[in-house]
Amino acid sequence: MMPCMAALTPSSSFSVTLKLRLPNRAGMLAKVTQAIAAAGGNLGRIDLLDRVLTSMVRAIEIDATSTEHAEQIVQAVRMVPDIEVLEVDDLTFDLHRSGKISVEAKVGIHTPSELAMAYTPGVGRISTAIARNPEMVYDLTIKGNSVGIVTDGSAVLGLGNIGPEAALPVMEGKAMLFKQFADIDAFPICLATQDVDEVVQAVSQLLPVFGGFNLEDISAPRCFDIESKLKARLPVPVFHDDQHGTAIVVLAALINAFKVAGKSLEDARIVVNGAGAAGIAIINLLKLAGARQIACCDRFGIISRRRPTLTAQKQAIAVEQSGTLVEALAGADAFIGVSVRDVLTVEMIDSMAAEPVVFALANPFPEIQPELVGDRVAVIATGRSDYANQINNVLAFPGVFRGALDCRAEGITPEMNLAAAEAIAHLVGRTDLAPDWIVPSVFDERVAPAVAAAVTDAARRDGVAKH
Amino acid sequence: MMPCMAALTPSSSFSVTLKLRLPNRAGMLAKVTQAIAAAGGNLGRIDLLDRVLTSMVRAIEIDATSTEHAEQIVQAVRMVPDIEVLEVDDLTFDLHRSGKISVEAKVGIHTPSELAMAYTPGVGRISTAIARNPEMVYDLTIKGNSVGIVTDGSAVLGLGNIGPEAALPVMEGKAMLFKQFADIDAFPICLATQDVDEVVQAVSQLLPVFGGFNLEDISAPRCFDIESKLKARLPVPVFHDDQHGTAIVVLAALINAFKVAGKSLEDARIVVNGAGAAGIAIINLLKLAGARQIACCDRFGIISRRRPTLTAQKQAIAVEQSGTLVEALAGADAFIGVSVRDVLTVEMIDSMAAEPVVFALANPFPEIQPELVGDRVAVIATGRSDYANQINNVLAFPGVFRGALDCRAEGITPEMNLAAAEAIAHLVGRTDLAPDWIVPSVFDERVAPAVAAAVTDAARRDGVAKH
Repeated sequence: MMPCMAALTPSSSFSVTLKLRLPNRAGMLAKVTQAIAAAGGNLGRIDLLDRVLTSMVRAIEIDATSTEHAEQIVQAVRMVPDIEVLEVDDLTFDLHRSGKISVEAKVGIHTPSELAMAYTPGVGRISTAIARNPEMVYDLTIKGNSVGIVTDGSAVLGLGNIGPEAALPVMEGKAMLFKQFADIDAFPICLATQDVDEVVQAVSQLLPVFGGFNLEDISAPRCFDIESKLKARLPVPVFHDDQHGTAIVVLAALINAFKVAGKSLEDARIVVNGAGAAGIAIINLLKLAGARQIACCDRFGIISRRRPTLTAQKQAIAVEQSGTLVEALAGADAFIGVSVRDVLTVEMIDSMAAEPVVFALANPFPEIQPELVGDRVAVIATGRSDYANQINNVLAFPGVFRGALDCRAEGITPEMNLAAAEAIAHLVGRTDLAPDWIVPSVFDERVAPAVAAAVTDAARRDGVAKH
Repeated sequence: MMPCMAALTPSSSFSVTLKLRLPNRAGMLAKVTQAIAAAGGNLGRIDLLDRVLTSMVRAIEIDATSTEHAEQIVQAVRMVPDIEVLEVDDLTFDLHRSGKISVEAKVGIHTPSELAMAYTPGVGRISTAIARNPEMVYDLTIKGNSVGIVTDGSAVLGLGNIGPEAALPVMEGKAMLFKQFADIDAFPICLATQDVDEVVQAVSQLLPVFGGFNLEDISAPRCFDIESKLKARLPVPVFHDDQHGTAIVVLAALINAFKVAGKSLEDARIVVNGAGAAGIAIINLLKLAGARQIACCDRFGIISRRRPTLTAQKQAIAVEQSGTLVEALAGADAFIGVSVRDVLTVEMIDSMAAEPVVFALANPFPEIQPELVGDRVAVIATGRSDYANQINNVLAFPGVFRGALDCRAEGITPEMNLAAAEAIAHLVGRTDLAPDWIVPSVFDERVAPAVAAAVTDAARRDGVAKH
């Protein structure tokens, strides 16, 4: 299937601001906006920066669908007669310039006595107190509220193994979300090694500073190994967001989608396409929640017990059945795609059971364009912010860590993840629930506190809460 | 020599706030303040919190000289008849509670389009740009302005090997100072290992995130090894503050003290007492600045070439001469102590050359109490904020890193340290220069920019500046 760029909505992640000089006469701005519209750009703010007798300077914000598209739009504007393009600003690059987070002092130091309390000699009393009672590090330092966001850059977004430096902007973005949604002080730890044991060692050595670790963008199956070794070694929450964050939000969305579609988790036939970190974690959490019929497909089809070689993780989710994705989907109630663009067709959806649920979560381009699906499904969800039902991890990880830190959890159990998913699902009330409203907005301020409370309760039930 | 606590000035680093209920009648507050004064406490703010017909509640801030002293004062107040002590707050502990730094987002994310720019999918464009051109990590992430403050907790302040958790409050304090004085985003890296190669490995693996590393509170001689291995391995500034920060400020102070005393660095006989990290670094920097006669003493006396076993660092600073500290000081022009309290006596000072310079930098208790010195010296300096001439590293490290980051230095050379010292010395103008004014105030806002500019210039001369 051909990429279908025109079907994509222009997005502010491909937004440019043009600074233009136009002749000061009627109709000039209209020519520019027509050129932008003809090139498929979406207009945002239009500001007047300067006006003299013969000309004016305007700044025009334009959303495009890709970098190339943005360049085409700029080119189209340049072709308008009498218009001078003074400057092209890329808003996304501007936002990231010099980084997106900072380290701030909670109090200023402006007098010798403040310096004597915050630093030497006063700080010596704090150090002594912690040396005498190591538990006090949680009360007297940042450790009680800090999370290391750990990556080795081996599987960054959908971009692959582009390395730890290129992963840093993503980790900074994550740190912003931790702060904004859960008031957690998170700091990027991008490691210059992709050796499993070296990653485990490096993270373990940072235990004195961090109250928990969020693993991110580490390739499968290495991520399973790294996570399980760290969980065994460290007495603090360790959470691989690509696995468990995704699984939590998918389960939350599926609970509500099944309410809309009139299906039950216990009886539904579910097909998960993609057997990477997310796929495996989704299946494990769905099973914990009660799902009993889940077939997982990778690029070779259904992962069947009959296959000769399987990793331990795939072994655990393998089924009796074998066949292709097409065969798996015939009569299925739900498709959950964590794979690649355009692998799902309208025909495959039509072969599913009545009122099918489709989660097409490949990013940035889903397994099927929602525009093609129409009313063939009971519910469709994607990972994108420009369609309804965005399955976004930001619904989960801030609250999960807030809850785990609040109760000083020694780890994160599957039941804590399950509780998080149920809390998210529960926030969409019966009256709000609709085919295009199965998860709360990522900006819904109730989400993180609700998730945190549920996670804390589950940690107490599981006996891993130290507070 | 007996500890001489009474000679010490009460300090806000041992400050408590008492909440008291007093009978509402004349003379009651006077009784309390008399009791505090009699116990040697210094009064700070006195607030009236509540007043009813028969009683009033007041909060009284008191500086003490030590934790024990603070407890004695509280005890003295408890003994005042009719007074009820409702609460004892320790201001230093209050200041450190929950940590002293936070990680903040530079911009808030409040709309889907902001989320799409700061996080996925927009951030993918930034990651791709860095993957294509690794140098862009300096422009598009925090790396260009971030410093890791690295310790293994093996030599924390004067408290010894109390471990990385107990070191964390010190590193947080340092991060505050980095921010306040040089707008640098510094984050504590307290490592759960004290193996030299493991420390080197752990720091090296954090290179993707940090534009430089400040080593801190690592014991000698391990610190020399760790620093030299990291300098060889990493193409960014690595700076052991206990060595070079101290050396820079000592040299700056000595340049000006010698102006006051009418001595010259080239001709002066200088005795450095203490052959740890600071002592060795001071000697090396003094030599680079032109000093030619420096004897270093450790607890066994002058470090002489004749000694059978010497570390490489001590070998490099050993002299022909041998003898005791007392013998070394006879006729010397300057004493620089980076050792322990009370090792210097009035008699030893009297044996020095005319107009001697004494830097008694042991912390928190100097090699000799300034009160005992009187006018026997041309200049005396300590590491304490409650005497004149405080030799405080905060004069150096913020500006050194600001300069090194600004010019993207690939390392820090001895000449950059020398330039920093000269810049600090230069900020005390001829007219301000006095026996009690040889270094600028730590709150002098000219210091960090002046140091940064000097460091940048030196980096360019040395060919280590990439910008």
